[in-house]
Amino acid sequence: MKTSKEYKASLKKMKPNIYKFGELIKDVTTHPATRRTVNGHAQIFDAAQKSEYKDLLTTKSIISGKCVSRYLSILQSADDMVANVKMKRLMFNLTGTCTGGRCAGFNALNAMWATTFDIDKELGTDYHKRIKKWLKNSQDNDITISGALTDPKGDRSKPASLQKDPDLNLHVVKEKDDGIVVRGAKVMICGVAAANELFIMPGTGYKEQDKDYAVSFVVPRDIKNLTIVETRRPSDNRELEEGFDNPVEIGGITQAYLLFDDAFIPKERVFMCKEYKYSMNAVMNFIAPYRAAIGGCVAGQGDLMIGASALMARANGLSEKAFREKINQMIINNETTFGMGVAASVLGKKHPSGVWTPDHLLANVNKVHVATLPYETKRITQDIAGGIGETGCLPSYKDINDPKYGKLLKKYLSANCSGETRAKIARLIEWLTIGSGVPGCMHGGGSPDGAKIVINIKTNLNHYMDFAKRLADIKENIEVEPKKK
Amino acid sequence: MKTSKEYKASLKKMKPNIYKFGELIKDVTTHPATRRTVNGHAQIFDAAQKSEYKDLLTTKSIISGKCVSRYLSILQSADDMVANVKMKRLMFNLTGTCTGGRCAGFNALNAMWATTFDIDKELGTDYHKRIKKWLKNSQDNDITISGALTDPKGDRSKPASLQKDPDLNLHVVKEKDDGIVVRGAKVMICGVAAANELFIMPGTGYKEQDKDYAVSFVVPRDIKNLTIVETRRPSDNRELEEGFDNPVEIGGITQAYLLFDDAFIPKERVFMCKEYKYSMNAVMNFIAPYRAAIGGCVAGQGDLMIGASALMARANGLSEKAFREKINQMIINNETTFGMGVAASVLGKKHPSGVWTPDHLLANVNKVHVATLPYETKRITQDIAGGIGETGCLPSYKDINDPKYGKLLKKYLSANCSGETRAKIARLIEWLTIGSGVPGCMHGGGSPDGAKIVINIKTNLNHYMDFAKRLADIKENIEVEPKKK
Amino acid sequence: MKTSKEYKASLKKMKPNIYKFGELIKDVTTHPATRRTVNGHAQIFDAAQKSEYKDLLTTKSIISGKCVSRYLSILQSADDMVANVKMKRLMFNLTGTCTGGRCAGFNALNAMWATTFDIDKELGTDYHKRIKKWLKNSQDNDITISGALTDPKGDRSKPASLQKDPDLNLHVVKEKDDGIVVRGAKVMICGVAAANELFIMPGTGYKEQDKDYAVSFVVPRDIKNLTIVETRRPSDNRELEEGFDNPVEIGGITQAYLLFDDAFIPKERVFMCKEYKYSMNAVMNFIAPYRAAIGGCVAGQGDLMIGASALMARANGLSEKAFREKINQMIINNETTFGMGVAASVLGKKHPSGVWTPDHLLANVNKVHVATLPYETKRITQDIAGGIGETGCLPSYKDINDPKYGKLLKKYLSANCSGETRAKIARLIEWLTIGSGVPGCMHGGGSPDGAKIVINIKTNLNHYMDFAKRLADIKENIEVEPKKK
Amino acid sequence: MKTSKEYKASLKKMKPNIYKFGELIKDVTTHPATRRTVNGHAQIFDAAQKSEYKDLLTTKSIISGKCVSRYLSILQSADDMVANVKMKRLMFNLTGTCTGGRCAGFNALNAMWATTFDIDKELGTDYHKRIKKWLKNSQDNDITISGALTDPKGDRSKPASLQKDPDLNLHVVKEKDDGIVVRGAKVMICGVAAANELFIMPGTGYKEQDKDYAVSFVVPRDIKNLTIVETRRPSDNRELEEGFDNPVEIGGITQAYLLFDDAFIPKERVFMCKEYKYSMNAVMNFIAPYRAAIGGCVAGQGDLMIGASALMARANGLSEKAFREKINQMIINNETTFGMGVAASVLGKKHPSGVWTPDHLLANVNKVHVATLPYETKRITQDIAGGIGETGCLPSYKDINDPKYGKLLKKYLSANCSGETRAKIARLIEWLTIGSGVPGCMHGGGSPDGAKIVINIKTNLNHYMDFAKRLADIKENIEVEPKKK
Repeated sequence: MKTSKEYKASLKKMKPNIYKFGELIKDVTTHPATRRTVNGHAQIFDAAQKSEYKDLLTTKSIISGKCVSRYLSILQSADDMVANVKMKRLMFNLTGTCTGGRCAGFNALNAMWATTFDIDKELGTDYHKRIKKWLKNSQDNDITISGALTDPKGDRSKPASLQKDPDLNLHVVKEKDDGIVVRGAKVMICGVAAANELFIMPGTGYKEQDKDYAVSFVVPRDIKNLTIVETRRPSDNRELEEGFDNPVEIGGITQAYLLFDDAFIPKERVFMCKEYKYSMNAVMNFIAPYRAAIGGCVAGQGDLMIGASALMARANGLSEKAFREKINQMIINNETTFGMGVAASVLGKKHPSGVWTPDHLLANVNKVHVATLPYETKRITQDIAGGIGETGCLPSYKDINDPKYGKLLKKYLSANCSGETRAKIARLIEWLTIGSGVPGCMHGGGSPDGAKIVINIKTNLNHYMDFAKRLADIKENIEVEPKKK
Repeated sequence: MKTSKEYKASLKKMKPNIYKFGELIKDVTTHPATRRTVNGHAQIFDAAQKSEYKDLLTTKSIISGKCVSRYLSILQSADDMVANVKMKRLMFNLTGTCTGGRCAGFNALNAMWATTFDIDKELGTDYHKRIKKWLKNSQDNDITISGALTDPKGDRSKPASLQKDPDLNLHVVKEKDDGIVVRGAKVMICGVAAANELFIMPGTGYKEQDKDYAVSFVVPRDIKNLTIVETRRPSDNRELEEGFDNPVEIGGITQAYLLFDDAFIPKERVFMCKEYKYSMNAVMNFIAPYRAAIGGCVAGQGDLMIGASALMARANGLSEKAFREKINQMIINNETTFGMGVAASVLGKKHPSGVWTPDHLLANVNKVHVATLPYETKRITQDIAGGIGETGCLPSYKDINDPKYGKLLKKYLSANCSGETRAKIARLIEWLTIGSGVPGCMHGGGSPDGAKIVINIKTNLNHYMDFAKRLADIKENIEVEPKKK
Repeated sequence: MKTSKEYKASLKKMKPNIYKFGELIKDVTTHPATRRTVNGHAQIFDAAQKSEYKDLLTTKSIISGKCVSRYLSILQSADDMVANVKMKRLMFNLTGTCTGGRCAGFNALNAMWATTFDIDKELGTDYHKRIKKWLKNSQDNDITISGALTDPKGDRSKPASLQKDPDLNLHVVKEKDDGIVVRGAKVMICGVAAANELFIMPGTGYKEQDKDYAVSFVVPRDIKNLTIVETRRPSDNRELEEGFDNPVEIGGITQAYLLFDDAFIPKERVFMCKEYKYSMNAVMNFIAPYRAAIGGCVAGQGDLMIGASALMARANGLSEKAFREKINQMIINNETTFGMGVAASVLGKKHPSGVWTPDHLLANVNKVHVATLPYETKRITQDIAGGIGETGCLPSYKDINDPKYGKLLKKYLSANCSGETRAKIARLIEWLTIGSGVPGCMHGGGSPDGAKIVINIKTNLNHYMDFAKRLADIKENIEVEPKKK
Repeated sequence: MKTSKEYKASLKKMKPNIYKFGELIKDVTTHPATRRTVNGHAQIFDAAQKSEYKDLLTTKSIISGKCVSRYLSILQSADDMVANVKMKRLMFNLTGTCTGGRCAGFNALNAMWATTFDIDKELGTDYHKRIKKWLKNSQDNDITISGALTDPKGDRSKPASLQKDPDLNLHVVKEKDDGIVVRGAKVMICGVAAANELFIMPGTGYKEQDKDYAVSFVVPRDIKNLTIVETRRPSDNRELEEGFDNPVEIGGITQAYLLFDDAFIPKERVFMCKEYKYSMNAVMNFIAPYRAAIGGCVAGQGDLMIGASALMARANGLSEKAFREKINQMIINNETTFGMGVAASVLGKKHPSGVWTPDHLLANVNKVHVATLPYETKRITQDIAGGIGETGCLPSYKDINDPKYGKLLKKYLSANCSGETRAKIARLIEWLTIGSGVPGCMHGGGSPDGAKIVINIKTNLNHYMDFAKRLADIKENIEVEPKKK
């Protein structure tokens, strides 16, 4: 397995194709716009070599039996899935934010492991063999894989094939003997700059007419005819500055637009091509572990909010006990998303391909919590922090160190610690609650409205009505005629 | 294992010592004040013999290896504990309410199994041997055991030994060669009328001066010098009436005051006597599984609220789809307490005595949810039900069947079903949300404030502060001097 | 103006036509099923004669200029409406529950005052003259008027004229020279037993085909062919018992079914007859002050929950300061519904008829709060109370006074006060949170879903979109085609 | 009264003493760091001249009877205070954010108008005469006044006089015949760059030993020995860029640190000097209108979030009706803070000096809502917006207009409108929910914890306990001994 140094070296070797602010990023490991997320991902390699984290970050390969990164493994049991939830929490503890260049890729390979198994079984294709071969190599080389699901979509009220522009969803434009040519984009893709390869998932809701859109493949990040543009985040200019206004050097998050302009994908890297009936299952297989494990992510960031809040309380001369009720609520929020992730993991079941799928109902309930509870945790963090940590109430690093008035600012910022330390805690709180360390709790892993649809589908209301009728000894059958349209 | 008929026969045989409304209840299986809770408990025996429920309701004895009721088993693994959570949900689905005459007893025997093991190991006593022997007989006879923890307590600002009246907490008044004599009370004890035996837990917070209060034992319900008074619940008079105003015949809940007036407890049934240092652990061992599993209880009752809400929507001529957002929220609430119970179960650990203890932090977080979420579920149920199911807006069964105007009432109650069926659904909703089927979500298994104290104790704030400091590269040590008193 | 004694005498004189449990109630002022609500209403007369409450409970007549009960007045200004909100809070403080035999009648007469003015102006009818004459007499005789809006409705998916049974909404069956004959019912009508007259409002949603249903009138409670059946509430049997299990003697709530079986209504008491286009306005005029003022009601009951919680804390030996955060939340809830009621009152406007109409948007926002916040207040009350006040954990009055074991129960109930006092506080808490003092926050004054529809109608989204476009300098027009059906 | 042009000219004339990023800002009306907040404040002058807004933005002077800016008026009635709440909502509608350079100054002059009246009356000083004279001139010149309350404070567990550094709270260092010399700072002061003068309030909690800290005065922004440093906000670098990444040009918010380094304040501008007993009242007079009116502020920004959400829904091809339940909740949140502000205004009372003071209890309840509800509104806005509006998922303006790949980005951003318009809406949502337009709901006008203390003080628990005892006929007196320390 790679060291963090080898990991960075592998990124350095890649052909530059990532842009931000109109500039081509030559070296993602040193450029300020991408360096921090690479540093965050590098911590995965460091942690994998520490005895206290090793068991969480590595596991046995389903293929070779060798020790591999958990992020490159097939989830085979409830225990694997629980470890996944815990690993996410740990990585947020260590980086303060998302190491998104690995988890979606991890989900994608598991989802397509199961989906290719099903397709092959029913249609006699050889996708599963392809993914197995690719995965073996990937494990051998300990690569980092980002996963990409979201299409631009265009007008949400229309299917892919009826959009004004056919490219608004990624699609196959040509099938060749040795591969396919694709055009379109995947958008808002996390951690691309820190990845070696990109695992493309199909979207959902495809019918016969949309079959060209049912496509899944994996490619090196730097293939021909792929242009990548990094998006901007709140306060991301600070990453280009010196000093602690961006307080975190060892973690960071990025999202990218992947622009495929007639890119060629070799056959052995294609895992779905027009089998539109399987795209819904592929996505369901993707979101179940995603929405379970993300409970660990937000808990891990919540842990840091608790820590930062307690630090600020002390910095202000107050014991954290003064905020016991509030900190309790933060703990409750963290443990709820974490716990629900664990429960969804445990109540899952095994797919014939060997993949363990978390319980859909609980995973999606958790997605709703993930889109709600962390916002309260953030609000409480700002509440405890006082004005200095809420929004826009702290001078810049440059001003705090200004030769003319910097000394005065430091003096007035000091409390039960130095002014500089207090400013650093405030910046950390800003970064965690409203700044560039904020990952997408709301729409990461899909929207809460999407989750509610799954919740609806996975609940058997008739079952509950039968229990109620039995209890109150109600015999009459009560039906409602469907409304005429 | 007993049939439900044998179970009822075993209760019939016992000496009457339970009173309500000043009346001695001669036969708990037929008296309207206790019949329904006995019926509810009887369903456990019926369900244990059905193939679809058998695995949930029975397990292998740790002692004999024989198949025994899960309620009489030692929880030995995460799987056992998850089964416990699921079993509670099922029993609420079947009875609509609490079968409290089993679960606290189940928790008590597990808690004291571990506690006696520790006491014996450190003090050389033989309590564990006693409990093992007693449990073996109990399993052989498939008895039903209610658990009792709560003392009257008196002035909450003072310890047991400093109360005006020493009896305000149950205590040992005399030690004899063959046993002990106890005086005092245990109050608000659930399901006593449906139980064969009572398992008495010690309270907590005892120091040397309070050692007489550290006492645990198990006794038949009908021992000498024990008087039992059943409490009253909202609308409990309806249980004495005919008709569906109390809509449920196959489930019910009771709480009792146990008045021990110098009752003698034989030595072999005593599991703690003055070992005050172990009472806190005993209670912690009791509440962890209790507060995990109660998540299944409230989910199970919540399922019925969903069912009843959907039925009422249909009865009113509306599809349940009109209330999709609200029903979703009910599902989320149910699955959250259930899921957190499962997670607490899974993340537990094994005690040297063989008992599996759920995770304290998650179990107590769940207790807070249990004291909060079901109240929203109830509110939504009343919201969907309309005025008829909210409070006090439905004529009595007697009026609905009145020879003079009953026909008119039925006519005006009818909608998309008969007036009688609609009234039954409304009564079920009243029973579930504000009536006699409402179990104590708030204080059952202890108060949410107590849970918050455990949450505080079980969280390592320094750990989180260290992560935050590491992330933002803060070196300064920040301490707050404790306030002088 | 009447004294409370004269008020009770006026009720005594009326012909008995109210039933409960199959029994005709001969004297509503003494029968246990109705006595308490009459006592509650009687407090209005007593308070009107006390200097500290007089200004709130009385005002000047718009007709005679004489001092009249505020409940019989026309709301003419923001100040009148604010006084209404405060009066409701006071009456809940004094009675612990709803004096529903006055407030809906008060709303009905104001709503129809405005509506008859509009009908007369447009259609040349003389309804307004009729209501004016009737009101003058009513003020002179200081009568108590209950208001009735809700029809049985039947299948909610169908309009009145398409129900299987035409009587499922109250309707005119015959028009005569001197009046009309009506058939049908009004259901869940509050305070009927305490009223001298009943003010009938039309329902809504009526079109040409439903015009027979657009009917409004006022009648003495004891007219011919009107049968009244009181509904049952949680624990209402306790009203028939002795002792403090029903802890309140000076207040109570009732709801009734009014069964009109071809009842004749004299012309001068009819205020709408088939003018279906005005029924929606009539109801909007009714609900605006209702949904504003109900904020005072639930605040007034909330005040008592705070008081009872603090008493129980002390009874348990704890200072109420131990629950500061929780009591704060209760205060916030109370002041929010009260404050929103005041704001809706103040932001209203004057109708040409002289009636002040509160702001529809804020009144309906408040209705949503009223259907939500008191439930949290109740939950917190039970939280602070401990198990004894939650549900079903206190022996009956009869048992507490049992000659055999009553002494023991009192002993074990005592804490920082006598056992009897502590039991009384617990019963008060039960009565306030889950018992017979609970008024219908959810559906009283209509459902929260109905309120949300008004909120939607009264909000101009385009206005907000225009502000947003102006701010971000967006010129493009963005429209969505309506879905084809 | 001034035009916006004259207003800007008055700012241009002032001596530069404001710094940001180490740079002296020469002209606040053109510098990108301050231009937008000046533009926002300028809208006040423009709106005052529009017929539809004039009545809200101007009123009659208490001194001269002439028409003056409402921001320079004394609040004399409930109507004045309600107009204040509405004016704030309007200004947020127009600027999208806070025009903080006026409202705190407005509160300060009202608070000190009352406080100086009281001091003079009791101590025979002439402060009230001074403030009157100053206000007359200020009204004549239509100046803009920022208000400053918050001191750096240092260790929150210690009073001002016991801090390590005496300057951690602003204080009088010398009294001279013609004025005073002050040292220290006021921090996190809003809108300073847009103001002509600064109104300094005293802090609270001062005793005899702290009397040097009880000081209030008003000064031109550009006096000698005053250095001002602007703080940084999320994404504030974007203000220095071109394009719509900072989407708003006509509004903006700033906060400043005011560093007084032995600044001289002439006597006639000093309104409190060491009268420490009055500082608490001064602050209470300040926060009551502040915490009432801020309900209008957050409602006004909430309106824009509704507008922006509906626009994004349409941009995505969906009707805003698809989000009806969510938009309803946003409306409820907005109208609640607005309505509570109105209610607090109306229920106030008149101070002998002529100032109308809102109700303390309701104003502080509203502060708690203001620190809670807008966070839910923001969350819902991000929910409706989809990933593009949540956080960090949109390419930069520069990239969207890149010659190489900008066209592709625009194509993939387009939906039911152009890609550019959709990007603008997304940036507006980012600005409103997580960007530089976010004002300090949490700590603006003081912390919610501070508000809760006032709520506690202003509630008479004994009153509620008496009502509860009366209702349940409880005679026993229940007291708790205070804990011994």
